[in-house]
Amino acid sequence: MNSTKLATLTLYKHLFRECHKFSLYNYREYFVRRVREDFRKNRNLQDPTKIAEVLKYAQENLEVIQRQVSFIVCCLLVCLQLSSAKWAKPRRLDVVSRSQNRLRDDRCRQFKTIKQNVDHFGFSNMDTYQQRYTLNTDVWENGKPILFYAGNEGDIDLFCDNTGFMWDIAPIFNAMVVFAEHRYYGQSLPYGNQSYSNPEYTRYLTSGQALADYAYLLDYIHSSIKGAELSPVIVFGGSYGGMLAAYFRMKYPHVVVGAHAASAPILQMTTPCEAFSRIVTQDFLQESAQCVDIIRSSWGAINRIGSSASGLQRLGNLFKLCNPLKSVDELKNWLLDMYGNIAMVDYPYPTSFLADLPAFPARVFCSNVTSAVLRLRKNDDEDVVRRIIKGTNVFFNYTGQTECFDTGSQGSPSLGDLGWSYQSCTEFVMPMCSDGVNDMFENQPWDFQAFSDACYDQWKVRPRFEWPYIEYGGKNLTDLRFFSNIAFTNGNLDPWSSGGVRTTVAPSLPAIPVIGGAHHLDLRAANKADPPSVLQARQQVVALIEKWIS
Amino acid sequence: MNSTKLATLTLYKHLFRECHKFSLYNYREYFVRRVREDFRKNRNLQDPTKIAEVLKYAQENLEVIQRQVSFIVCCLLVCLQLSSAKWAKPRRLDVVSRSQNRLRDDRCRQFKTIKQNVDHFGFSNMDTYQQRYTLNTDVWENGKPILFYAGNEGDIDLFCDNTGFMWDIAPIFNAMVVFAEHRYYGQSLPYGNQSYSNPEYTRYLTSGQALADYAYLLDYIHSSIKGAELSPVIVFGGSYGGMLAAYFRMKYPHVVVGAHAASAPILQMTTPCEAFSRIVTQDFLQESAQCVDIIRSSWGAINRIGSSASGLQRLGNLFKLCNPLKSVDELKNWLLDMYGNIAMVDYPYPTSFLADLPAFPARVFCSNVTSAVLRLRKNDDEDVVRRIIKGTNVFFNYTGQTECFDTGSQGSPSLGDLGWSYQSCTEFVMPMCSDGVNDMFENQPWDFQAFSDACYDQWKVRPRFEWPYIEYGGKNLTDLRFFSNIAFTNGNLDPWSSGGVRTTVAPSLPAIPVIGGAHHLDLRAANKADPPSVLQARQQVVALIEKWIS
Repeated sequence: MNSTKLATLTLYKHLFRECHKFSLYNYREYFVRRVREDFRKNRNLQDPTKIAEVLKYAQENLEVIQRQVSFIVCCLLVCLQLSSAKWAKPRRLDVVSRSQNRLRDDRCRQFKTIKQNVDHFGFSNMDTYQQRYTLNTDVWENGKPILFYAGNEGDIDLFCDNTGFMWDIAPIFNAMVVFAEHRYYGQSLPYGNQSYSNPEYTRYLTSGQALADYAYLLDYIHSSIKGAELSPVIVFGGSYGGMLAAYFRMKYPHVVVGAHAASAPILQMTTPCEAFSRIVTQDFLQESAQCVDIIRSSWGAINRIGSSASGLQRLGNLFKLCNPLKSVDELKNWLLDMYGNIAMVDYPYPTSFLADLPAFPARVFCSNVTSAVLRLRKNDDEDVVRRIIKGTNVFFNYTGQTECFDTGSQGSPSLGDLGWSYQSCTEFVMPMCSDGVNDMFENQPWDFQAFSDACYDQWKVRPRFEWPYIEYGGKNLTDLRFFSNIAFTNGNLDPWSSGGVRTTVAPSLPAIPVIGGAHHLDLRAANKADPPSVLQARQQVVALIEKWIS
Repeated sequence: MNSTKLATLTLYKHLFRECHKFSLYNYREYFVRRVREDFRKNRNLQDPTKIAEVLKYAQENLEVIQRQVSFIVCCLLVCLQLSSAKWAKPRRLDVVSRSQNRLRDDRCRQFKTIKQNVDHFGFSNMDTYQQRYTLNTDVWENGKPILFYAGNEGDIDLFCDNTGFMWDIAPIFNAMVVFAEHRYYGQSLPYGNQSYSNPEYTRYLTSGQALADYAYLLDYIHSSIKGAELSPVIVFGGSYGGMLAAYFRMKYPHVVVGAHAASAPILQMTTPCEAFSRIVTQDFLQESAQCVDIIRSSWGAINRIGSSASGLQRLGNLFKLCNPLKSVDELKNWLLDMYGNIAMVDYPYPTSFLADLPAFPARVFCSNVTSAVLRLRKNDDEDVVRRIIKGTNVFFNYTGQTECFDTGSQGSPSLGDLGWSYQSCTEFVMPMCSDGVNDMFENQPWDFQAFSDACYDQWKVRPRFEWPYIEYGGKNLTDLRFFSNIAFTNGNLDPWSSGGVRTTVAPSLPAIPVIGGAHHLDLRAANKADPPSVLQARQQVVALIEKWIS
């Protein structure tokens, strides 16, 4: 055997070995198939130049696969971590659906990029990266305002699609509309697909760095677009984006004249841990007390059925899960997330924001769960479980297109999950618990130490739970009184309102309630099904903007 | 020769070799002498235990010396760097004297420490360090205010000694008095004597990190001292400390209710480069036009005399320099610094802040320079130089105790020089230039690229000149209008007033002039020689504090 042949065989052996490291079936099979095909196609090559080329290609492939393996192993660790942590797991504030049925706005896909420093707060790392944003001047006139969305944990185009309010009011102000993607999400990855691969790459994922990105971007827009030099900037954001909008005005009042912070739980880090689950319960309770009773009793039913291996398998079959259940906790966490998500997107019209959903999904869920078609016998665990399953179809299979369900995801997984896991393991520890009495969940205390340990295992970091109130305030609500020009809107149906600013602490920090509103309903485009309170909130924000820019 | 003897000899040889690496005569001789004495004392030892002990001690000494060498080599590099950069060198805002005659306040030496995170803005580095501060409750009552000094580039005790205003007004408010040492200065060194040894250790020296230290310290004081929970905090600072005071209120209005920012050149980074040297010139001009003419003509005289090797030597002798001059630039830079420093501390009474100085040092300097005792002949270079030398005695040898002068230092060198060199190579690029027409200096343009290159050679960083206005504002003065409760005081004699806020941009951001005042005169203790304007400025600040805490 000549040396080239030996090198070839060694290389392919490496390739096969790396491919088999993928623990996800789809990835593994795909790469193994590719390697095998390449090997068969090229094994009879004679021309030395061709052989060298093919070897070079294979070597490059090996590197790509090695990177992918380390990346996917990392993702898997996160998922495993999550599934044992229950309420104590990092809860994403927003998850944007990649449903095929979602609204798509072409204006949200005309991307630009700007070169940003990876580390704004130190000078020894001089790396840069490309941050993505969209900028629309269709109705903008010289000197008129810039409406700026402070991107949160996901692809910016999807937030852009779902923030119709900014597009709706742009003509009123002849405004420019800008959506900026948050670093480490979407395609704004400081170290490409290695961004989450080690602590040295991930360390620049903080709210502070993101805000500095936005300040640089706006400085660039002001100085590079003729007529924009003096354009005042209004910042918008929903959920974590709403927190960023508030923080941006708080920390950079020299950059933005005012903020519309929608459903921004800036006090969540200091809010009692049970608050979130009580609001979720309240949302279902207003639809049906019987529904809440059934949900509350479902946990025991699931525990009893799933206490044996065969029972666990039966649960998997009943729920039509794609993969065998490893534990009842896996199923319960999936349901726990679902209830929170239904409450968040309990909108008065069909949406595709988190998933394809009907109007008032909590109502439809409860109507399914309490349906008389199903028999209701006391202590019949399987009946209870069947009712919950009928409910879950509202969230997971409203369009009837799904054949089986993956408990690892709510809708579609994305880099966002990874990023938010890191952020909640560092700056944004949002304690979650339930008692099973004042809410419809199991008794689940909050355990900071366990949470911190899980963070360390996963990311080699520990959270500093006090950092947000040191840096941004909010330990006492009155601490916020020196900030100005922030409109805090919160829907009473939104479980995140538990950490929202719902009291006006200074005249220029109005807390605007949205009765009948779920998670940042007010940021969505106008809809004829909107409750009156959201119309009023929007009018109020428009009036405030007029004041801020005058 | 047995193996112990061999080891001993090898060790001593290492020790001598390391000692000879010291380029400073004093250090080198001291260590060589110590090593020689130890060697002689122990060479006849017989007891193996004793020999082992002595060897262990020698080994430890070797390590200490190696560390010192690397540290001092680093210092020397800085000094060399500085001496070739002229106006373009980093100019320290404040230099605190270690003169034996300086004021010492025992309350400034009751140190406490607090454990701080080395990196507040990231989570992957979990190192901590001990930050030093003083805290005095002599006149404090429960719930009453905290007067907090945001330490700048030096030992905190010396700023504490020289900020009598805070001590003077503490009884009016029954206030607690706290002075916090800035990280990387004094004894608050995140990585001990290695803090400046490599970019990975130095990277946490930023104003942002310092402010976060202060926010954590105040949170700790609020939560650990009974009765202080609701005590409002007023922040004070002079010079760079004044910048920090302003920034602290700007970025942390939830922590401090107001700021007295004395002589804080927060606009220096965007101020025309010639402004500083024009104010220095103005200070001398108001004493004597003839004095300014002589200073202006001195540069040519020095250049001509120093153009030959013998002339250079003659200059060194005339100026009584401790070490031979390497170039005329070395001498001119030393004088350049001196003029700036005289202008900064042109106080109306004798002080020991920068050095031991008479009242009105610029006046005394000019009186010496223009003295009729010296002959004044046109084109007599040596006469001009002798006049300047008579002037320099005001600054460098007012007490007559100095035998020779070191051009590497203005008064006494300290870690502060090293730290400020880094800070001006990263965040605080303050452009300096002169034209020789509108000022009394040589024509020296500002060269950002040369400055940036020198920074890279020295620290492996490059400045981001735009960062302060991105982060703190000030590109346009009106950008500051959304901040509040900051009193900006600036003396008209102070060259740093060129970068001060001297226009009131919002009612709660008063610009308070101090006519006849040099660098943060208003922060010093009351003195019967104080000009009326400084009394008025202090009264105004007291009235503002009353308003802020009400």
